[in-house]
Amino acid sequence: MYNAKAYSVSSPASPFVSASIARRDPTEHDVQIEILFCGICHSDLHQARNEWSGMMPTVYPCVPGHEIVGRVRKVGSAVTKFKPGDLAAVGCMVDSDRTCPECKADLEQFCPNFTLTYNFPDKHLGGVTYGGYSESIVVDERFVMRAPSNLNLAGVAPLLCAGITTYSPMRHWGVTKGKKVGVVGLGGLGHMAVKFAHAFGAHTVVFTTSPGKKEDALRLGADEVAISRNADEMNKHAGSFDFILDAVAAEHDINAYINLLARDGNLTMVGAPATPLPVAVFGLIMRRRSFSGSAIGGIAETQEMLDFCARHNIAADVEVIPIQKVNEAYERLVKSDVKYRFSIDMASLKSE
Amino acid sequence: MYNAKAYSVSSPASPFVSASIARRDPTEHDVQIEILFCGICHSDLHQARNEWSGMMPTVYPCVPGHEIVGRVRKVGSAVTKFKPGDLAAVGCMVDSDRTCPECKADLEQFCPNFTLTYNFPDKHLGGVTYGGYSESIVVDERFVMRAPSNLNLAGVAPLLCAGITTYSPMRHWGVTKGKKVGVVGLGGLGHMAVKFAHAFGAHTVVFTTSPGKKEDALRLGADEVAISRNADEMNKHAGSFDFILDAVAAEHDINAYINLLARDGNLTMVGAPATPLPVAVFGLIMRRRSFSGSAIGGIAETQEMLDFCARHNIAADVEVIPIQKVNEAYERLVKSDVKYRFSIDMASLKSE
Repeated sequence: MYNAKAYSVSSPASPFVSASIARRDPTEHDVQIEILFCGICHSDLHQARNEWSGMMPTVYPCVPGHEIVGRVRKVGSAVTKFKPGDLAAVGCMVDSDRTCPECKADLEQFCPNFTLTYNFPDKHLGGVTYGGYSESIVVDERFVMRAPSNLNLAGVAPLLCAGITTYSPMRHWGVTKGKKVGVVGLGGLGHMAVKFAHAFGAHTVVFTTSPGKKEDALRLGADEVAISRNADEMNKHAGSFDFILDAVAAEHDINAYINLLARDGNLTMVGAPATPLPVAVFGLIMRRRSFSGSAIGGIAETQEMLDFCARHNIAADVEVIPIQKVNEAYERLVKSDVKYRFSIDMASLKSE
Repeated sequence: MYNAKAYSVSSPASPFVSASIARRDPTEHDVQIEILFCGICHSDLHQARNEWSGMMPTVYPCVPGHEIVGRVRKVGSAVTKFKPGDLAAVGCMVDSDRTCPECKADLEQFCPNFTLTYNFPDKHLGGVTYGGYSESIVVDERFVMRAPSNLNLAGVAPLLCAGITTYSPMRHWGVTKGKKVGVVGLGGLGHMAVKFAHAFGAHTVVFTTSPGKKEDALRLGADEVAISRNADEMNKHAGSFDFILDAVAAEHDINAYINLLARDGNLTMVGAPATPLPVAVFGLIMRRRSFSGSAIGGIAETQEMLDFCARHNIAADVEVIPIQKVNEAYERLVKSDVKYRFSIDMASLKSE
């Protein structure tokens, strides 16, 4: 066991402060990673502020962060995938039971016994797991991915959650060249969805409430932008989409988007509104449409996504901040005031 | 043009009365069918009473009926599939544009220019189409199916709507041996769904609010019956279904069923509640579940379904009535007092 510098919160209302946390010494299958960048996901904020108290109550102190990229410093004796000096990445999970049907299908994200990267029972040290707002992390090599070396590492970090969360459903529902794909909401997840849909060769349409985002959407790879409050712009696309990815976690009229789907089209939610969304069944019946959800992706698919990003030069658009600005960043996150993801430069933690 | 005996309603509140309607003389591609049996679908009642006034207002007089089985009496000069004396069947559609992508994909039910069997503009005679509550009908051979000769014809009629509506989504979503399938609601559609799921080799569970239906569900082919108001009986099945067919058109808690789906499970609605159903998105996200709808089936698939029924000795459980009892049957239909479909014996019309 050793001590690592980190930033933690001690209650729902308290700010992040510098702290010291315990990390285990690497066991034979473990990789110790010096964290270079950690993205700030909206989930971090929900967890830090205990906004999911019903489902996943926060254990304090809490160290969030599950968009982690860094450099391997030490490896256990049985580790084969990594050696010191390698670039490595860790996402939302650090373990699973490895024996259930979900794990055997490379879908660890649905394993009933997974271990999330933070605020989950820590099987090694007791207490809860601590995430990436820290100088280092120790993870079983089976849950560590190889990170691309040709990309801006600050922009690679968000691929571990925002990236895989949008890549996986598009792969699952068959987004390819020749398909028409919609992306609802141009935030951290949405901007990655646009990059992927474009890279897959799909005709990509961004739906946004903000006319001001139009230019940026086109720059990110959209072929068209529709202002969702403009009925004409919406109607123009009626019945035409093969797939729509909806990254809006706030309440919104989902039927307006379901009606844009072609026959056999699918709309997948990756944001989870707090209250149920009213779905007009007739809209589903008439074109055999489907409405579904998707959660991150498995470890193998996350590696596949990172390799895809390396080949296609895809990384998140980030605003890099020092860890000392994390409280300010959270305030801006609440207002969606970031293009499109904060990425914490962990070198800033060395001065603490 | 010739006159045919029929039963029609002249306003939303008036009863069915004996009437005479015009049918066209068969054109070269047409088949003239003497109707032997016509099932009573809940849609007939909605249309007769103008309960879909917003979407599909009723033109009076109205002759419903789209579960038609009969015997070919005359064929046009270009007809190749049928000859006089053959058994034939007609379902919900009597025409489509035949050129759109949906028609080319054998999915005429999604053709934007289809012609429904009743209350739809009649391209031949003007006015609207008249359905199967009649002694005969004239239909283009492309929309006429061959009917099985080894089954009780009264029970074959409902296959043309209740049958294909449940068969098609199970085929589409891959119901086969080894899968676990749920059926919600044991009415006209539900009882067909149980027969098909059982015939496909799936482990079939019926959900019903009525303990009294348990024995009947088992007789129809269910492996298990769960009383949906019993939380223990529901929880027992959490996360275990590959597919659930929901045939309940009334409002109900859809999330209770979505939560019974396994990873990648699908719940398909074939009933359309009048108001939107609130869907908890988190339940979709956690196991990549999907929620969808399905409408009848294409002509080729309807024929496939009829052939499947012939091979597996499947027909609807019907209560045969003379046409003179149709008003009484409608009153009972409103109370779901029928096991499981009314089938009108059209021989009764001869005495009118």
